[in-house]
Amino acid sequence: MNRVTAAILVIGDEILSGRTKDANSGYIAEYFTRIGIETREIRVVADDETAIVEAVNFLREKYDYLLTTGGIGPTHDDITADCVAKAFGVGIAEDPRALALLLERIKPEDLNAARRRMARIPDGAELVANPISKAPGFLIGNVVVMAGVPAIMQAMLDDVAPKLVTGAKILSEVIETQGLPEGAYAAGLEALAKEFRDVSIGSYPKLVDGRFHNQVILRGRDEALLALATGKTRAMLAEVSARHRL
Amino acid sequence: MNRVTAAILVIGDEILSGRTKDANSGYIAEYFTRIGIETREIRVVADDETAIVEAVNFLREKYDYLLTTGGIGPTHDDITADCVAKAFGVGIAEDPRALALLLERIKPEDLNAARRRMARIPDGAELVANPISKAPGFLIGNVVVMAGVPAIMQAMLDDVAPKLVTGAKILSEVIETQGLPEGAYAAGLEALAKEFRDVSIGSYPKLVDGRFHNQVILRGRDEALLALATGKTRAMLAEVSARHRL
Repeated sequence: MNRVTAAILVIGDEILSGRTKDANSGYIAEYFTRIGIETREIRVVADDETAIVEAVNFLREKYDYLLTTGGIGPTHDDITADCVAKAFGVGIAEDPRALALLLERIKPEDLNAARRRMARIPDGAELVANPISKAPGFLIGNVVVMAGVPAIMQAMLDDVAPKLVTGAKILSEVIETQGLPEGAYAAGLEALAKEFRDVSIGSYPKLVDGRFHNQVILRGRDEALLALATGKTRAMLAEVSARHRL
Repeated sequence: MNRVTAAILVIGDEILSGRTKDANSGYIAEYFTRIGIETREIRVVADDETAIVEAVNFLREKYDYLLTTGGIGPTHDDITADCVAKAFGVGIAEDPRALALLLERIKPEDLNAARRRMARIPDGAELVANPISKAPGFLIGNVVVMAGVPAIMQAMLDDVAPKLVTGAKILSEVIETQGLPEGAYAAGLEALAKEFRDVSIGSYPKLVDGRFHNQVILRGRDEALLALATGKTRAMLAEVSARHRL
């Protein structure tokens, strides 16, 4: 089955300081799972040219798509568009299409140098619409550049997603282990993971009020195979559970 | 002023699928800011040996510390300890100290092969205490390996933090821009950023009910310099505000 991969690059000192919690990467990852794109890596880097250029070039080479969030506003710390142009080795200039979009929201007399920065788009990029505050993101090669403000990023993702090539959807099944400790079913789960190489089987512990509530999650692209693996996993867990409660 | 840097490596397919939202990296970043360690990069990788080993080796070389979360439980997808040993080129074996800790919680007859996996610690590592469920994390070289379950990770961080070398604390000042758009103060902010090279000045837009509520955040290690830059930024914003509302 065909597989399409992606990386997400979150750009911003405020995330690294811990002051702002990144919600964008989780949102994109979930969205991509739904449409059949597999997120393989997420990185957060500072508002630093070298860090951004290196990460963009590494990730766009390694994965089918790279999505970035943050750093495309009007202030001096918004350097993403310039860094992406540098990474691609192309020029960057004020884009008449982007300028026209800004003028839908900003009065001509208010369109100062800082605001015009938001119309700087790398050569050859396609615009990504921003229905909320107009200043567009863009798509260049396999890289999608979006805003950091969650509501704007989400609207941009809705705009660009139909243009992306997607693969077979990754289906998943969740099994609640009803209080069973991981150590009780780990051996059984490992045997099943070896039997079903094309199904990814994981165990996810969660602590609620000091007690573990674990989930086993099976993920795969082949519905029939996933159903078979899930059935066998349920049977294994039921057996462990019966023994465990003896 | 002395500077200590760190990277955070989050390990787990469930984060990349978007099903589980990573809260650990934001928690650690905030904690580190408070104690004087500067997080410079965050990465999320899959439960995949090559991906983990490469990320561990790259990040531990580049930064003063690397903290990892996830992948140290008893199931087959918990491969972090083995990957870290491989990254360091050291052996890994059942550690009697770790085994003794497990036996504080697990009855000897229940200590099966899967659970014993949690006692596998790379050669030369120091243990990191887990007051919640006993299975320890560890510290090897400049790498701290912790659990992925947030409550356990947080307890482990409390245990290991006093052992870490810290730098000058990064102080910050937050200025609410009272509804001013970024484009109105961007030029003034850029001039101040150039004047105060040792203060990092950022503008952070936030959208609430369709309106921007932006903050300017100044960060630096020198209290007097930070106070000076903050005073000048407030004055600049007041001036812009007066003009803006004319």
